[in-house]
Amino acid sequence: MIHNKLPKIWYGGDYNPEQWDDETMTEDLRMFKLADIDVATVNVFSWAKIQPNEETYDFAELDRIIDRLHGDGIAVCLATSTGAHPAWMAKRYPDVTRVDYEGRKRKFGGRHNSCPSSPAYRKYSQLIAGKLAERYKDHPALVAWHISNEYGGYCYCDNCAEAFQAWLQKRYSTIEQLNKAWYTSFWGHTFYDWDEIVPPNALSEEWGGNRTNFQSISLDYRRFQSDALLDCYLIEYKEIRKYSPDIQITTNMMGTYPELDYFKWAKHMDVISWDNYPSIDTPVSYTAMTHALMRGLKSGQPFMLMEQTPSQQNWQAYNALKRPGVMRLWSYQAVAHGADTVMFFQLRRSIGACEKYHGAVIEHVGHEHTRVFRECAELGRELTQLQDKLLDSRIDAKAAIVFDWENRWAVELSSGPSIALKYVDEVHKYYDALFELNVQTDMISVEEQLDQYDLVIAPVMYMIKPGFAEKVEAFVARGGTFITTFFSGIVNENDLVTTGGYPGKLRKVLGIWAEEIDALLPGQQNQIVMKKVDGALSGTYTCSLLCDLIHSEGAEVVAEYGSDFYKGMPAVTVNKFGEGEAWYIASSPDQHFLQSLIANICKDKGIEPLLVTPSGVEVTRRSKDGKAYTFVLNHNADEAEVDLGAQPRPELLSGEVVSGVYQLAAKGVMIIEG
Amino acid sequence: MIHNKLPKIWYGGDYNPEQWDDETMTEDLRMFKLADIDVATVNVFSWAKIQPNEETYDFAELDRIIDRLHGDGIAVCLATSTGAHPAWMAKRYPDVTRVDYEGRKRKFGGRHNSCPSSPAYRKYSQLIAGKLAERYKDHPALVAWHISNEYGGYCYCDNCAEAFQAWLQKRYSTIEQLNKAWYTSFWGHTFYDWDEIVPPNALSEEWGGNRTNFQSISLDYRRFQSDALLDCYLIEYKEIRKYSPDIQITTNMMGTYPELDYFKWAKHMDVISWDNYPSIDTPVSYTAMTHALMRGLKSGQPFMLMEQTPSQQNWQAYNALKRPGVMRLWSYQAVAHGADTVMFFQLRRSIGACEKYHGAVIEHVGHEHTRVFRECAELGRELTQLQDKLLDSRIDAKAAIVFDWENRWAVELSSGPSIALKYVDEVHKYYDALFELNVQTDMISVEEQLDQYDLVIAPVMYMIKPGFAEKVEAFVARGGTFITTFFSGIVNENDLVTTGGYPGKLRKVLGIWAEEIDALLPGQQNQIVMKKVDGALSGTYTCSLLCDLIHSEGAEVVAEYGSDFYKGMPAVTVNKFGEGEAWYIASSPDQHFLQSLIANICKDKGIEPLLVTPSGVEVTRRSKDGKAYTFVLNHNADEAEVDLGAQPRPELLSGEVVSGVYQLAAKGVMIIEG
Amino acid sequence: MIHNKLPKIWYGGDYNPEQWDDETMTEDLRMFKLADIDVATVNVFSWAKIQPNEETYDFAELDRIIDRLHGDGIAVCLATSTGAHPAWMAKRYPDVTRVDYEGRKRKFGGRHNSCPSSPAYRKYSQLIAGKLAERYKDHPALVAWHISNEYGGYCYCDNCAEAFQAWLQKRYSTIEQLNKAWYTSFWGHTFYDWDEIVPPNALSEEWGGNRTNFQSISLDYRRFQSDALLDCYLIEYKEIRKYSPDIQITTNMMGTYPELDYFKWAKHMDVISWDNYPSIDTPVSYTAMTHALMRGLKSGQPFMLMEQTPSQQNWQAYNALKRPGVMRLWSYQAVAHGADTVMFFQLRRSIGACEKYHGAVIEHVGHEHTRVFRECAELGRELTQLQDKLLDSRIDAKAAIVFDWENRWAVELSSGPSIALKYVDEVHKYYDALFELNVQTDMISVEEQLDQYDLVIAPVMYMIKPGFAEKVEAFVARGGTFITTFFSGIVNENDLVTTGGYPGKLRKVLGIWAEEIDALLPGQQNQIVMKKVDGALSGTYTCSLLCDLIHSEGAEVVAEYGSDFYKGMPAVTVNKFGEGEAWYIASSPDQHFLQSLIANICKDKGIEPLLVTPSGVEVTRRSKDGKAYTFVLNHNADEAEVDLGAQPRPELLSGEVVSGVYQLAAKGVMIIEG
Repeated sequence: MIHNKLPKIWYGGDYNPEQWDDETMTEDLRMFKLADIDVATVNVFSWAKIQPNEETYDFAELDRIIDRLHGDGIAVCLATSTGAHPAWMAKRYPDVTRVDYEGRKRKFGGRHNSCPSSPAYRKYSQLIAGKLAERYKDHPALVAWHISNEYGGYCYCDNCAEAFQAWLQKRYSTIEQLNKAWYTSFWGHTFYDWDEIVPPNALSEEWGGNRTNFQSISLDYRRFQSDALLDCYLIEYKEIRKYSPDIQITTNMMGTYPELDYFKWAKHMDVISWDNYPSIDTPVSYTAMTHALMRGLKSGQPFMLMEQTPSQQNWQAYNALKRPGVMRLWSYQAVAHGADTVMFFQLRRSIGACEKYHGAVIEHVGHEHTRVFRECAELGRELTQLQDKLLDSRIDAKAAIVFDWENRWAVELSSGPSIALKYVDEVHKYYDALFELNVQTDMISVEEQLDQYDLVIAPVMYMIKPGFAEKVEAFVARGGTFITTFFSGIVNENDLVTTGGYPGKLRKVLGIWAEEIDALLPGQQNQIVMKKVDGALSGTYTCSLLCDLIHSEGAEVVAEYGSDFYKGMPAVTVNKFGEGEAWYIASSPDQHFLQSLIANICKDKGIEPLLVTPSGVEVTRRSKDGKAYTFVLNHNADEAEVDLGAQPRPELLSGEVVSGVYQLAAKGVMIIEG
Repeated sequence: MIHNKLPKIWYGGDYNPEQWDDETMTEDLRMFKLADIDVATVNVFSWAKIQPNEETYDFAELDRIIDRLHGDGIAVCLATSTGAHPAWMAKRYPDVTRVDYEGRKRKFGGRHNSCPSSPAYRKYSQLIAGKLAERYKDHPALVAWHISNEYGGYCYCDNCAEAFQAWLQKRYSTIEQLNKAWYTSFWGHTFYDWDEIVPPNALSEEWGGNRTNFQSISLDYRRFQSDALLDCYLIEYKEIRKYSPDIQITTNMMGTYPELDYFKWAKHMDVISWDNYPSIDTPVSYTAMTHALMRGLKSGQPFMLMEQTPSQQNWQAYNALKRPGVMRLWSYQAVAHGADTVMFFQLRRSIGACEKYHGAVIEHVGHEHTRVFRECAELGRELTQLQDKLLDSRIDAKAAIVFDWENRWAVELSSGPSIALKYVDEVHKYYDALFELNVQTDMISVEEQLDQYDLVIAPVMYMIKPGFAEKVEAFVARGGTFITTFFSGIVNENDLVTTGGYPGKLRKVLGIWAEEIDALLPGQQNQIVMKKVDGALSGTYTCSLLCDLIHSEGAEVVAEYGSDFYKGMPAVTVNKFGEGEAWYIASSPDQHFLQSLIANICKDKGIEPLLVTPSGVEVTRRSKDGKAYTFVLNHNADEAEVDLGAQPRPELLSGEVVSGVYQLAAKGVMIIEG
Repeated sequence: MIHNKLPKIWYGGDYNPEQWDDETMTEDLRMFKLADIDVATVNVFSWAKIQPNEETYDFAELDRIIDRLHGDGIAVCLATSTGAHPAWMAKRYPDVTRVDYEGRKRKFGGRHNSCPSSPAYRKYSQLIAGKLAERYKDHPALVAWHISNEYGGYCYCDNCAEAFQAWLQKRYSTIEQLNKAWYTSFWGHTFYDWDEIVPPNALSEEWGGNRTNFQSISLDYRRFQSDALLDCYLIEYKEIRKYSPDIQITTNMMGTYPELDYFKWAKHMDVISWDNYPSIDTPVSYTAMTHALMRGLKSGQPFMLMEQTPSQQNWQAYNALKRPGVMRLWSYQAVAHGADTVMFFQLRRSIGACEKYHGAVIEHVGHEHTRVFRECAELGRELTQLQDKLLDSRIDAKAAIVFDWENRWAVELSSGPSIALKYVDEVHKYYDALFELNVQTDMISVEEQLDQYDLVIAPVMYMIKPGFAEKVEAFVARGGTFITTFFSGIVNENDLVTTGGYPGKLRKVLGIWAEEIDALLPGQQNQIVMKKVDGALSGTYTCSLLCDLIHSEGAEVVAEYGSDFYKGMPAVTVNKFGEGEAWYIASSPDQHFLQSLIANICKDKGIEPLLVTPSGVEVTRRSKDGKAYTFVLNHNADEAEVDLGAQPRPELLSGEVVSGVYQLAAKGVMIIEG
């Protein structure tokens, strides 16, 4: 990450002064100072203002905004404004609007509204990106480029159909190869020409958003649309790079957003940035997992927290306020997991349109005497005081969880065994178990090297891409511990089943065969019965969702099912393989079982908690130049007792030296150095 | 109201003899006599019969129907038949059918099916209205004109798009003004030409019916569609007036129907008429409120009950029969609130199509020996016996509730704070509190004069139109009591936030500042804790939905929140302002609190109940020529004890003289004179 | 049924070797032998493979498949492959794809995807059927023709609109007749020309799939679409018959599938075949009823069980495994009700597309050492051992239930009285009562002769077609017992109400008049109070859904309502009529009442249970050549005690001789001869 111009955790956020007058901006700048705000993301949605028609560009207002910000010492994260095309463009070049999942040609409106295959959109977005880069490349305020905004949404228009056909030709070379990969002998789908292929949506193969007749077609369309939007990003990226060789370029991501393969995108980004919008009832371990995933996109490189709300959101069903201290706590949670910026949407509230009830540092009342502003200003002061201590520090994890967007698509497109199977939820169950233990955990792609870890968990690893099984075998053989679950090892990268017995290519390392997969009705349960006492584990637990009916082929049976006709069949197994071991969890267990199991395994493998804390107190550690920074975050509504160990160490936020048993306030945060 | 020809409460309803043979009509006329029926609404859906093609009109059947009715002493409410266009018209002039919310061009079918901007529809509806007026203007049976039927539904076609652009030009004059009013600098929506503007529907700015990206655009489209349908009405109105200068003209409304601004429509109607279709589980106070609203459309002028069912409906999910006595009770409830007619849909049941299981005076069995007919005939006898006593009598109310369709649109289009906020439900909570007290209450528009009232309540007065805040201030200054709630005073007529602190223009009169608005999850509650005992109020109540976090700026704090981080902040305040006081209810309280609060306020202000009765016994009073008519309506399933006071007075339905404690039968009705 | 080539219960199913290589097929054939499989349905979805373009046909692969099967002694059920058209056809002839209910033109994708009015589809499906018939007519493996696959789905395109207009002209001759039948004087729908008529869908008269403004239009469109698909079937049927005069022709049906009038289709089928896919929570009596319905399509003729899954399905929400023994039990349940084949979808699992997780005899593991294969092989052995004993045996029933698809359409299209009324569920309630008694019951059409039965039940006989009422009267007059329910006798075949009092044409035989119909809210109940003790019946039961308010016109009142304003009115009546009696059940009773009532009636009429068994033990009997075969099926999860009677008789599956009290294993089956 390039931090040459702001040697501290950036603090600021989205700022849209084109929506109000100069006087108001003067007031904003006064208040930014009060809050130690030092960065503003501008020009996110100004395309229609900057370019009133095909020929004309007018940068006067943007010049003034950037200059005024710079004049007050505010750095600029400069967006390219291509997140929403102008109305005149939609009128003149109808190809810029999308055809939606239902097959309806959209008109001008909303945002995320441009067809990624539109010639007009591609032409004009390239042009505007170039114009901006050329004009502002040397502006002293500039610290980052922000391309478009929250890419997402698919299109199903004829231009996309053609582009899809070309994408397929590149992937499969011959129509015969495609017929094989798509298994078109099923339901008489054999294609004889590329132009017989239509996008899979509600008019053809799909319904309900993720139900499909042909998993391979739908999978490829997701790959294609993710690539097509990535192409749009790259068109702008390359254009900016022509003029601005050194300034980092990013686009803001959305955590576990389903539609884009972020691991593939990350390869083309200088720095990851993302927008964190948990609901009031989102588990904190889910947010933690998402931060870890964003950090994992570029193998542990720190990321930007590009957006979060100072208080409430507007687009949820019930938009609760962030309780006092929560904004600060969640900001530090981001930093604790690798963020090097803390940025808000938005610095001042709009007075019109759909986001006017979204929280902002400066609220509609317009002055600094609000709870929200006071909390923001207090955090600003703290971040200034932290200086560059944490910048570019890294997280050292011995445990990793594999996450894969293509696997996710395949799992959720599957027809059977159960619509209740949600990939991200199953992943989160395992992350949560490690989170409760305060074990540092990376979220990694299937392409990541495994040897840096002691424990690798791949929940519902349904799709096994070429080389992955071999990598797992090597990892385990060399002493690693691998855990996977039911409904794993079933298909290849085209969603074609690996015959010869589930879990296919993982069967050898796991030492089991899954003969059948039973789907349980909602509310229905089976039991996991431990065969013997094993550390924290003994007796009987519950499981649900799916039950693989497995046979050991060498694996030790750790637990059995407790009821139904497969009572007594293995529910949990572990297989010695080389120096390591490979676990199979044949059903979706209750969280109590999972935490105990993971605790046992970590203990066996010497993977230590950073600290042992009460539930709801999160601990992470970032390190840099031989120094460790331990974050202790109390997510509880009450004070919590934390044992910090005998060694007295400085706590950076309070300036105190701490040790021993400590009473951490509700929503309280500590960053302990050393 | 023009009653020259029928000097009594009209009794009758929709009648469609074009659906059956002359013999059946003879039987109908015989039975009408048995039930004292004296008015029939005809020709509601006969356009296709009367006009078989562009050039031909054939009134022979309608002539015969009207003459036969007249011959039997039945007056005629004559509809213009434009509620559904003919099939030949849809085939020949496809512009008459609508484009729906999803952007789909509709084909012939259903009703409410004509595009309000369609040149063909406008041309031919004007023509048919003129032909009818010319032909029947002097028919002795004619007592009212009934234009179209239950106007409603929006269209999103290209003709509407163009008409919308023209409507906008008229409203905003320049595109710059429009950009400002619509806040188009948000999300890059700046328009440079009127023809870039498209109707907001599921293809552009909206989804889900009332979710939108741009509140101002969606608000204006609702205004425009309401106006466009009103134009259609006015085209017919003016055409009829050319020929028929004296006969009253109406169109039947639908109570709290969301899509049309009925206050604006009412200005162009000679008399309000409406169709009352409560479900078996609709609160009786809701029906009462709706009658009051219909009465309020023309500032208290009596209205026509144009439709109700004698027994069951057909279009609800579960169509329960009206229990014995309920049809009579609800008929008198209408009269009690200002109706001068009691009319049914329908006098005889159809035998085909979708309304054949809708109740009728004459059922499929075809004779008079049914429970339903007997109840109808009994009511007919009573109405005849009442003569003209109640006609044109008025209701005198000291309390009023403000209702505003544009405010309703804005509230329900809002993105945040909570999808659970339903404007009409919040209004109903306050109406219900007054209803339980038997305090006469008007439902008034924001344009109504307030000085005739002692108490004015404006629940969720989110949108403050020009002049309204000043009117409230003057009303309170002169001694009035004003009540408003959370989420009030936020925006102007274009849904742009009034900056400087909520509740904006109402802040001064209320003496408070609302800093934040918390949205509660479903089932979540806070508490309203009284600061002291106040009449019926003491201790702790519950509230939910939204909690404004307010600060007193001079207002007395009557109650505080009982929990969460804003425990102890004001929940209910009252501000002395001039001679009067202004209350702010910062959350949505439980009904027990609200009834006690309103009872306290009414008592303080000398607003007396008409009678004190058990719950479920409704009391209203109409007055005329110095005489008062008190309606006592027992909605309970059991007999109720009512104290009528010492003064013996005549009861019009029984002919008895009543006084003192009276046992009113279940579903029983009294009309006490004097 | 033609059994010349396979003198036993056929055993096999759908087989798609075009999806894999020859080596795999070799393995399949080896395993078929292990399972005694002797029939394979092939070529179901191979159109695109066999016909790569307009001019070319290539049968090489199909030749090889059929020859190899024959070589291994496997008979062939040869499909025509027209269940899904090729992609090239959709590209070249867009008329082959449908316009859906929402009015959207579909693209290539899925199956059931051909417009039944498409000239191209009709032309090419005729051609391919002819080519196949010509080529394979004399192949020694051929035992049946299987046209298309699971016909279903409606189209709303312009070709269908035109065909609908022509169909209507044929039905009604004049537009005046149509206007009358459709009751178009309602809502101004009078048509002057056939081409003004548009298909009723979401763009015109309907919404939500089965809600409509005009019941008669929607009813006729269902008739038309059922006929149009039947025409497609007949085009192929006739083409095949040209070449193949003796081989039986079928198409696979889907039980109570709503969209096609199977009784009309059955007239054109040589043998009924159907696909049985109960869920894990489908009542076994529902499956039994469906088998009886399929048997009733051709008046008792044995049918083919064309498809069932060996274990789990893939397309349900939660796809549970069939528990051990269940596949065998349900296979014998089919045979017990008249099936002469036991066939699976599918013999081997696909490895791609949406059915890859559908159960198969040969699973993905590919070998015979699976629970599922073992169960299939065991059943195969048993079926071989049964030889031809059961073939073409018949079921003798004294009780019958009337089922009518047109009545079903009319009931479910009705606007009012209750959306909760589901025709098939009401029918099932009565079937279930007889099922619990082990009384053999036929499911018959309204055209069936009634005199062969002692008891005929017609639940919710809403639509009375010409002649039906007279047939019922004759049946009862001659001594039969007839039972019908609430909401019966209301309309004629065009959904026009029979005036003069419900239940219209059934009023005389029932001796009652239904004055009103009350709809109860969900969860609301009334009571059925017995007027005296009658066999198993006494005291009070519950009822719900709808309550007809009836008056006896000669019928004896057996029970009365227990509450509400119609307390004391008749709830159950019986009318002596000639030698017989006619019952009216005025509401939807609880199952306990219904079972007792039906038990009483059966006892009175001498309709004997086959055996008296514990609940969940089903008994049926097939007879042939003077021999009876009694099936005893234990659907319970536990062993059941069954009294087989004193007479020792051979049990065919075990080979034992059985008598007296017998312990039948959980999921156990007996077939007792004699």
